Amino acid sequence: MTSQRTTIGARARDQELLDDVLRTFENAEDPRLRELLSSALRHLHAFVAEVGLTTAEWQAGIDFLTAVGRACTDAQQEFILLSDTLGLSSATEIASANLVQDATENTVLGPFYVAGAPRRAYGDSVLDDPDDGPRAVVRGRVTDLDGNSIASATLDVWQNASNRLYAVQDPSQTLTNLRGRFLTRDDGSFELRTIRPVPYPIPDDGPVGRMLAAAGRHPWRPAHIHFMVSAPRYQTLVTHVFDSGSDYLDSDAVFGVRDSLVVDFEPQPEGGELLARFDIVLQQR
Amino acid sequence: MTSQRTTIGARARDQELLDDVLRTFENAEDPRLRELLSSALRHLHAFVAEVGLTTAEWQAGIDFLTAVGRACTDAQQEFILLSDTLGLSSATEIASANLVQDATENTVLGPFYVAGAPRRAYGDSVLDDPDDGPRAVVRGRVTDLDGNSIASATLDVWQNASNRLYAVQDPSQTLTNLRGRFLTRDDGSFELRTIRPVPYPIPDDGPVGRMLAAAGRHPWRPAHIHFMVSAPRYQTLVTHVFDSGSDYLDSDAVFGVRDSLVVDFEPQPEGGELLARFDIVLQQR
Repeated sequence: MTSQRTTIGARARDQELLDDVLRTFENAEDPRLRELLSSALRHLHAFVAEVGLTTAEWQAGIDFLTAVGRACTDAQQEFILLSDTLGLSSATEIASANLVQDATENTVLGPFYVAGAPRRAYGDSVLDDPDDGPRAVVRGRVTDLDGNSIASATLDVWQNASNRLYAVQDPSQTLTNLRGRFLTRDDGSFELRTIRPVPYPIPDDGPVGRMLAAAGRHPWRPAHIHFMVSAPRYQTLVTHVFDSGSDYLDSDAVFGVRDSLVVDFEPQPEGGELLARFDIVLQQR
Repeated sequence: MTSQRTTIGARARDQELLDDVLRTFENAEDPRLRELLSSALRHLHAFVAEVGLTTAEWQAGIDFLTAVGRACTDAQQEFILLSDTLGLSSATEIASANLVQDATENTVLGPFYVAGAPRRAYGDSVLDDPDDGPRAVVRGRVTDLDGNSIASATLDVWQNASNRLYAVQDPSQTLTNLRGRFLTRDDGSFELRTIRPVPYPIPDDGPVGRMLAAAGRHPWRPAHIHFMVSAPRYQTLVTHVFDSGSDYLDSDAVFGVRDSLVVDFEPQPEGGELLARFDIVLQQR
């Protein structure tokens, strides 16, 4: 008998429900909040209808989010890890940047930025602690889209040590280690000394780590140095420079790699230091 | 100058990123997990691109989810409240039901169901504690789609007391109060005695309550009695019967109301008890 009956489409029933839900947020005072909620609700309901979500799967989703919440501590933000490993942090950087042709690409800030890095002079090293990593110099010029020098631009730089950890994660490091703020000279040039960066795994001892394992994914990020570059009248650029010799460039656990940000760390004829060139193009506000 | 430059579309950049993210889940062993992740990721990335999510808004989202996680306790599941108040629990019920024409509509289970309610005889009351609410009798027949009686179907019934609380929430109530399992007679009929249900607010002292307040929404559910109806060879039906005289029928905080589930609690000529008729049609598995 049942087979002769008309099934009432789940989509039609859900459309009516979604309309009801959207209506309840029409009174939210902030128009941007209404816009965000409306888009988020449409996509969440479309997901449920599209996959035919079962109540058991819904419960598994609730349990997962609850476990992610439980894993959040002062030292580890598991929801940021979740956003990072689903590419949503990177997508947000892309959505919020409004990048123009020829400007240097931005990428994720990451959880290890700390404001107030020490001022360092042109050519100085960011190393305040012993580190047996290979020495490198990073050299470049900061310009506008037409190639004009930007003088006195600030480059805020941070990087992990050869033990894979950032100073902020590692009580054994001086808090200023591998951090520094540099200014460009009148010709837009900058130069800083550091160690060659090494890959590191993002924390994978929580539910996000279990998700990565279930998907057969690794938790590693390719070797990189963070830059935040700012100058009056220009958009602040949050980006990395990646080492072209690193593992994991094709499988960054947080999807931060952009091809235009990958540079060679080249041995120099006089030996000793590797040289990485990284020119930076800022766009106006 | 900048105005002459081509903007690099955020959507194009995000499409490439999304493809990368989807590729990393291709190795997940469970095909259903792959399907769920693929759909969820497409919708989440579409949301970020569509609204042009800013990093500040992203951070606000992270903070909100973290607060929801912190508010989860043994007594209160804030993620379920979030799902309920966004209509996602109701949408999941709809998506998973595959309802056919003429079958009784299902709705949300809610957080207050406890298995193992006491067996009660035809016509018995579910009241084990004193309650000064108006008395009501709920009477109906359980049939298949062709109107044939279903004998010995089990109706698992639960309801809040006149103080708004379910026994499971309220140490002052006997744990069996306003709960019971009834069997249909050979003609499919059932009858149970109870109190007229009253509206109640969902817990609104956490971040979900703050979200409701920000949207100008109230936390109330209209008066209802829960039913879980099961019989061999039929799909188990999880539903409510709503009181047509209740407030909040048009603004249920968890979007559980279906027009077909709203019935009158009518005064009887002999006085004393209100009568609610609720016929139930089950569909085969």
